[in-house]
Amino acid sequence: MAAGTSFLRQCIATTTRTLVTAKSKHSSYHFSTFLLPLRTHSRRLTIRAGITNNEEVAAKAAASDADSGAPTIFDKIISKEIPSNIVYEDDKVLAFRDINPQAPVHVLIIPKLRDGLTELGKAEARHGEILGQLLYAAKIVAEKEGIVEGFRVVINSGASACQSVYHLHLHVLGGRQMKWPPG
Amino acid sequence: MAAGTSFLRQCIATTTRTLVTAKSKHSSYHFSTFLLPLRTHSRRLTIRAGITNNEEVAAKAAASDADSGAPTIFDKIISKEIPSNIVYEDDKVLAFRDINPQAPVHVLIIPKLRDGLTELGKAEARHGEILGQLLYAAKIVAEKEGIVEGFRVVINSGASACQSVYHLHLHVLGGRQMKWPPG
Repeated sequence: MAAGTSFLRQCIATTTRTLVTAKSKHSSYHFSTFLLPLRTHSRRLTIRAGITNNEEVAAKAAASDADSGAPTIFDKIISKEIPSNIVYEDDKVLAFRDINPQAPVHVLIIPKLRDGLTELGKAEARHGEILGQLLYAAKIVAEKEGIVEGFRVVINSGASACQSVYHLHLHVLGGRQMKWPPG
Repeated sequence: MAAGTSFLRQCIATTTRTLVTAKSKHSSYHFSTFLLPLRTHSRRLTIRAGITNNEEVAAKAAASDADSGAPTIFDKIISKEIPSNIVYEDDKVLAFRDINPQAPVHVLIIPKLRDGLTELGKAEARHGEILGQLLYAAKIVAEKEGIVEGFRVVINSGASACQSVYHLHLHVLGGRQMKWPPG
């Protein structure tokens, strides 16, 4: 992913956030911007300038496109159009570092084929195999990152859970003592 | 589960916690006690009185038995020896309410057969199917609980993630705005 896109910022505001729009994929994103799901390359990108951190608002805004089936930033990461720091990859899943980490290790795991899995709440019985592969990949990632002795997996489904990209993704966090409740 | 057992208390202390020991499964547990994994019915149970909420300490204590393969409180819930508030059940998984909920809806989902899955960090490729079934069950539970539009799934693996029962379990939380970071 581009060094400037912080599309993974999620939930709970501490300050306010400013909305900015840019016209093309060639825009030079500010380091702490938040990228909403893209409909197409040619459409205007809605970018949230990271002056602040109102992640609830960001998730709610992203939810407006949740059922559109539109491509998201993850499609560009899968296609390598946007570079990312890949931790693990096989034919079914891709794992890469969250560029707005909430722990010393913070990796996202996504299915390469979204196949209707915009969110976990849209899962169907036929998705069982890929869901298992994603969760097993979390263990592989934890091993690779040296945190298999202690890590947390989080899946946000929907705006009230702070989902901000509508392509199912698992957060794998570790490298520090995690707290309770989990957000 | 017994109305008094709060074995699901996890991580981050706000107050101190007192250790109490009781001698049998027939002990009358205080409402806010924390039950560590049981080795056998006849052994002494280590119960953490919920005078406080130091969940990090609780998780670390539980971790000492993590690799023992000993039965846990969940075995008694599966066998119905300890009653629980079941939300969903099929031949592979059981979902029941956390009696120390961290959100208006807080359900735990476990595999009925632990099969080495004391924690997610112990998962092997052969566990892929049950992992998928567990994650799909989270969606079923969310639907049944009326939170499919917004819910968070959390899996704690190991003490630093606040795992306190060494039988893999998924937390499904919803019914309120979840925050970020997730603990």
